Amino acid sequence: MGYCFGVDIGGTTVKLGLFDTQGELLEKWEIPTRTENNGEAIIPDIAETIKAKISEKSIDIKDVTGVGMGAPGPINKDGVVHRAANLGWGIINIAKQLSDLLNVPVEAGNDANVAALGEMWKGGGKGYKDMVLITLGTGVGGGIITDGKILTGSMGAGGEIGHIHVEDDEDDTCGCGNKGCLEQYASATGIVRLAKRKLASTGEDSMLRNGEVSAKSIFDAVKAGDRLADEIAEEFGVYLGKGLAAIACVTNPEIFVIGGGVSKAGEILFKYIEEPYKKYVFHSNRDVKFALATLGNDAGIYGAVKLVIR
Amino acid sequence: MGYCFGVDIGGTTVKLGLFDTQGELLEKWEIPTRTENNGEAIIPDIAETIKAKISEKSIDIKDVTGVGMGAPGPINKDGVVHRAANLGWGIINIAKQLSDLLNVPVEAGNDANVAALGEMWKGGGKGYKDMVLITLGTGVGGGIITDGKILTGSMGAGGEIGHIHVEDDEDDTCGCGNKGCLEQYASATGIVRLAKRKLASTGEDSMLRNGEVSAKSIFDAVKAGDRLADEIAEEFGVYLGKGLAAIACVTNPEIFVIGGGVSKAGEILFKYIEEPYKKYVFHSNRDVKFALATLGNDAGIYGAVKLVIR
Repeated sequence: MGYCFGVDIGGTTVKLGLFDTQGELLEKWEIPTRTENNGEAIIPDIAETIKAKISEKSIDIKDVTGVGMGAPGPINKDGVVHRAANLGWGIINIAKQLSDLLNVPVEAGNDANVAALGEMWKGGGKGYKDMVLITLGTGVGGGIITDGKILTGSMGAGGEIGHIHVEDDEDDTCGCGNKGCLEQYASATGIVRLAKRKLASTGEDSMLRNGEVSAKSIFDAVKAGDRLADEIAEEFGVYLGKGLAAIACVTNPEIFVIGGGVSKAGEILFKYIEEPYKKYVFHSNRDVKFALATLGNDAGIYGAVKLVIR
Repeated sequence: MGYCFGVDIGGTTVKLGLFDTQGELLEKWEIPTRTENNGEAIIPDIAETIKAKISEKSIDIKDVTGVGMGAPGPINKDGVVHRAANLGWGIINIAKQLSDLLNVPVEAGNDANVAALGEMWKGGGKGYKDMVLITLGTGVGGGIITDGKILTGSMGAGGEIGHIHVEDDEDDTCGCGNKGCLEQYASATGIVRLAKRKLASTGEDSMLRNGEVSAKSIFDAVKAGDRLADEIAEEFGVYLGKGLAAIACVTNPEIFVIGGGVSKAGEILFKYIEEPYKKYVFHSNRDVKFALATLGNDAGIYGAVKLVIR
């Protein structure tokens, strides 16, 4: 019996999974991400914890067929990271580094892209080969799967869909320095921004005037029939629909899978996204499906291990 | 010595090329496209003309390693066309049909995508593996090459970039039924529309007021220092730059190659496209290259034959 490992490197923790070569998750655990000294300990720490697991489980190293890794930042097909700001990394080949330490084949990819592969394989996009994962969290991330494979792009920056320009008339600046990026409207922070603008623009009563405004409180208010919250969700949907329509013109996917914190609102999201999407998209792409991500925080380790399971 | 054929099916003529297996074009010719009776004669006509060429050149059919074809409309990976309106086709597998008639392997793809492959292989995108071809003709077409291969998409509608939404404030309707598509501003007809609007909005003198307004006359006027023409080219560039920025966020290309009739204006186009592109794009994609397509009408046969040359 063969084994492989999936590794999802985040800014505070590294998630790891031990899988069999059929892709069954046998065990998962976490270690802290030590970002000090330009993150020099991160890959050696991963090697150590994998060695410890191999020893604990009395696995023969010869039975380990590979390790897949996802990490934030652009990572090209050879496993070379081009600056991962929140890990401290400059330009390093993390796949080679880990492979040298473990003596097993290692593949690496961008975390959002790898999560998309995971959702295609075992999650909301199961059964599809042309899929887009949109992660609506603090920012808007994405991963494009085309013909069953990650669209990596020349530098590993494929699927950076949060920075598609969707609004000409915007005064606030996005974290990236531009104005009018999808992320400014469709992320958890973006929708809160839309809500605050809306609340300031009118004296109309709303549940959102009591307590903290968050993506959760906005969609809770939507579900409770709050009219202002409904209008905020409509604005959010127009921007997201417009962004997804642009992506569809480029990649012609079968399905969009929505993940990240905002997706916890559930299928009610689709009501707000689908109509503007259909308005803006080219007719060939009108019948695309929408689904919710299902793997949550495990998407990364599933997608990572899929990099080494054919 | 082996041979292969590249076939580019257009609405009025079918272009064909005889190549050796190194990709050297040995001879090219054309036949008319007979679109009557739902285009039922098109593929048999292609089989006949290829057989005639084989006979004329005394080529042994065993030395023909394959035929590649490009045709308008969405064509999936198996060679199945999903309605090609201007050829009369419904849903047919053109690759299988031609392969059955010739007894050689046949591959097929969408004409714009195939042209992109040709430009990557032998044209303006030579030396690159992550490339986008933008064809500025009557419409705006596109082909996405990622890691050296065509991005086909689920239905073969990948790269339909002419219908990316780039303007919220538009009254005219695009051929596709939407409003604000890139094609409405950046095609040959689109830039003429921008010019007519501009000329009607002001009494200012311009060379464009004498004679017919066309993409060519607009860029000729630009080169002659005409101020209104310069403003029209700026508008065109903003829309195109915005569209290309959206594509870059999705696919992270190394290079954009611009073809089609409008590209005859030459490198002066880049002056108008690059600045808005850099304004709208995510920083990872700022250093992308721009080039002109170089194969002209031969891009289709080169790309088609590349489908069967590995």
